Amino acid sequence: MLPLTLHRLDLASDADPADCLIRIEPGDGLLTATDLAATRGDGIFETIVVVDGVPQAMAAHLDRFERSAAMLDLPAPRRELWLAAVLASAEALREHTARGAVKFVMSRGDEAHPAAPSGWALGFAPHSRSAAGAPEVDVVLLDRGYRHDVAQTSPWLLQGAKTLSYAVNMAALREARRRGAQDVIFTSIDGFVLEGPNSTVVARIDGVYVTPPTDLGLLPGTTQSDVFAALEGWGELVTTRRIEVGELRRADALWLCSSTRGAAPVRSLDGRPLTVDIEMSDRINDALDARKA
Amino acid sequence: MLPLTLHRLDLASDADPADCLIRIEPGDGLLTATDLAATRGDGIFETIVVVDGVPQAMAAHLDRFERSAAMLDLPAPRRELWLAAVLASAEALREHTARGAVKFVMSRGDEAHPAAPSGWALGFAPHSRSAAGAPEVDVVLLDRGYRHDVAQTSPWLLQGAKTLSYAVNMAALREARRRGAQDVIFTSIDGFVLEGPNSTVVARIDGVYVTPPTDLGLLPGTTQSDVFAALEGWGELVTTRRIEVGELRRADALWLCSSTRGAAPVRSLDGRPLTVDIEMSDRINDALDARKA
Repeated sequence: MLPLTLHRLDLASDADPADCLIRIEPGDGLLTATDLAATRGDGIFETIVVVDGVPQAMAAHLDRFERSAAMLDLPAPRRELWLAAVLASAEALREHTARGAVKFVMSRGDEAHPAAPSGWALGFAPHSRSAAGAPEVDVVLLDRGYRHDVAQTSPWLLQGAKTLSYAVNMAALREARRRGAQDVIFTSIDGFVLEGPNSTVVARIDGVYVTPPTDLGLLPGTTQSDVFAALEGWGELVTTRRIEVGELRRADALWLCSSTRGAAPVRSLDGRPLTVDIEMSDRINDALDARKA
Repeated sequence: MLPLTLHRLDLASDADPADCLIRIEPGDGLLTATDLAATRGDGIFETIVVVDGVPQAMAAHLDRFERSAAMLDLPAPRRELWLAAVLASAEALREHTARGAVKFVMSRGDEAHPAAPSGWALGFAPHSRSAAGAPEVDVVLLDRGYRHDVAQTSPWLLQGAKTLSYAVNMAALREARRRGAQDVIFTSIDGFVLEGPNSTVVARIDGVYVTPPTDLGLLPGTTQSDVFAALEGWGELVTTRRIEVGELRRADALWLCSSTRGAAPVRSLDGRPLTVDIEMSDRINDALDARKA
């Protein structure tokens, strides 16, 4: 990834949002060695794709950011400020690229002080999607180690929050590469399909588009939500329900949905080829790019 | 915590260790917004206590750091360099405090570049232990969500590695405070005692000092190891074996062992009072402070 713009947010101020944004150089030192983002992975984030200056699925990302903040006992984000930061980043990105992304982060703050949360927004050029459409991916199933109901029984495990503690997600992606694949779908120890390390699963099973429910401790998929809206508009059947691992293996087609990649078609699962519906993949990704918010 | 000294390590060089340490101001911006420590909690760390200039349990901490690096597919740490960094920090800390600590960190690096690992060592004054001995703690048991054998079945979950992705550990400590306690002992979903968010469990059960084995996906306890060595020297019985949750509830005495706090006696478990063996706690902590390496 290529960082292009960076804004620091003044979270302590209640001034006009425009006065709470400080533009700095993306290569500058931003965080001390005692920032809890770096020492404990203790913060939350969202990544929004910007197409021709328009941040995509903005409301859904802000909703999820608020949800993550609540799950981590962080202060409720001042929504207008984060919105302003994304818009300022999107505007600044226009000078650089037609297709960028904005990652915005709230850290619990610097543990050298009575920690007050800090925030920043980074504009960058993602390298994971080309004009030629979403890349096809080989996927392996990996055990996430948890039961399907862990978010209900043990909320301190933060399943369903988008935190900076992604070491396990990164390790899972390295394990996928060791197995000759590029991506992962996590499964629960009791046999349910969960999500990817940075994506939402959409499977077409017996002609119906299916995604697992968030009460399995999953992130609400901002891209998956827009994919379902598009599919419904075209008269396709969509549903949100638990998917057993065996069902996934006999899916007609399978996608991993994420902001930066759109709907990436899965071409193999644990080494077994899957049919790629190129026509539908292109149609979905064109619809995602045509979003106006 | 109060940061007092900071050294940046040049991990790319193979020059003399002393020439690979750059002392900087601890309050300076050290990390960019694209450092994987801050964006993904993707790195490893150790914290070593320094008493009168002597880093405690140095070899055990470096061993564990190497183990964590291997589990995260990070390059093997150049041991002499990290040793030099801790010694330089310890020397610099002498100006400030008789009892300090050094936290040393390896990040996977800056994702803005083909990421090359970066490292730093922070000297600070911990506030969690006083001259009056380790503070007594109230502890709650919290489900870690995993089976006891998860480190064997699913190594990508990184259980047993000391990573920067500690958001769950921090959330567990907040849950403890909500329940009126200050600390946590995690349990496996199949009923075994694991570890604290930043400590190792030592229980005295029927007169024998017991700690759980690391093959449950636990960090090898550097402090616990020295506690056991001291106990054995005094003729006490020590053993490493699985502990069932029911056994823990009938322990004669219980401690959480960590570098910064030493052996902290547990005075209640899930709200039920536990006997605190003040005499033995003091004896153990005096032995820890008297370590020469």
